[in-house]
Amino acid sequence: MTLKQLTSTDLAYIAGFVDGDGCINAQIVRRPDYVLGFQIRLSITLFQKTARHWFLLHMQKQIGYGTVRKRPDGVSEYALVGATSVKNLLGVLLPFLRLKKRQALLVLEVIDTLSKSQDPQAFLKLCEMVDTIADLNDSKKRILRASVVRSELGLDSESIPCRD
Amino acid sequence: MTLKQLTSTDLAYIAGFVDGDGCINAQIVRRPDYVLGFQIRLSITLFQKTARHWFLLHMQKQIGYGTVRKRPDGVSEYALVGATSVKNLLGVLLPFLRLKKRQALLVLEVIDTLSKSQDPQAFLKLCEMVDTIADLNDSKKRILRASVVRSELGLDSESIPCRD
Repeated sequence: MTLKQLTSTDLAYIAGFVDGDGCINAQIVRRPDYVLGFQIRLSITLFQKTARHWFLLHMQKQIGYGTVRKRPDGVSEYALVGATSVKNLLGVLLPFLRLKKRQALLVLEVIDTLSKSQDPQAFLKLCEMVDTIADLNDSKKRILRASVVRSELGLDSESIPCRD
Repeated sequence: MTLKQLTSTDLAYIAGFVDGDGCINAQIVRRPDYVLGFQIRLSITLFQKTARHWFLLHMQKQIGYGTVRKRPDGVSEYALVGATSVKNLLGVLLPFLRLKKRQALLVLEVIDTLSKSQDPQAFLKLCEMVDTIADLNDSKKRILRASVVRSELGLDSESIPCRD
């Protein structure tokens, strides 16, 4: 199965499920081997009690991307990680998303900009978009915010407001 | 808007949302004014953080049944309660549900049987179906099970297995 074979009712169903219980996300993660020391991790994740693991496998089969794993806490996770799979799925889901459309648009914008530029100032702008996505997702986990990237890339002075 | 005006992509989206974060339920509730002292309460409920209360109002407008309320814990609830609205919505969602199809079929069976018979033994059978629905929903709340109804309606002896 490929995404192009999915009908509009399949896509609407998946969009409804993602809006209900999925997560469209971008996160700043430390990557000492990267030029700037940080990476932006893009993902779409669906959750389900491991008792209904079959359902996530069924979704994975339909979507054709991503991996399903059983977490030790009894919840299974189906995750698509990385620009290519996230961009492809969001591209087809976008017309059907209602609740998480803003996250989807921001993630797509981050992906398109990431591929173009990696200078510190441009990267920081992307990190600020990542902050917005985290806020839209009511993220409560301890996460890296753009302010950390700003400070560690030595871009702090840029944020001092002008004084007359 | 009435249910008949919803497109199949609208219905597929709603089914996906219900599968993801909704609840298709039947519950046994005490009703001293009822002949048997119990009622079976049928419901479909959607939840959302009150910050996104608008979304539930949007769903209510599309579906044309049910009420939306803000709970004191910061979660809003959109609930359809009662045989008529639940039956009408499940009837159109059924072809699109994947995860909660069994609950939907059981609730529809309960509704159809409820309208026919109210003798204690038949009612107890419905209560056992309600137990099955609660189990499918991973219900953790303190709920009335069929065993309570069986005991209070004096039907206990029926459940003693035959001995040779």
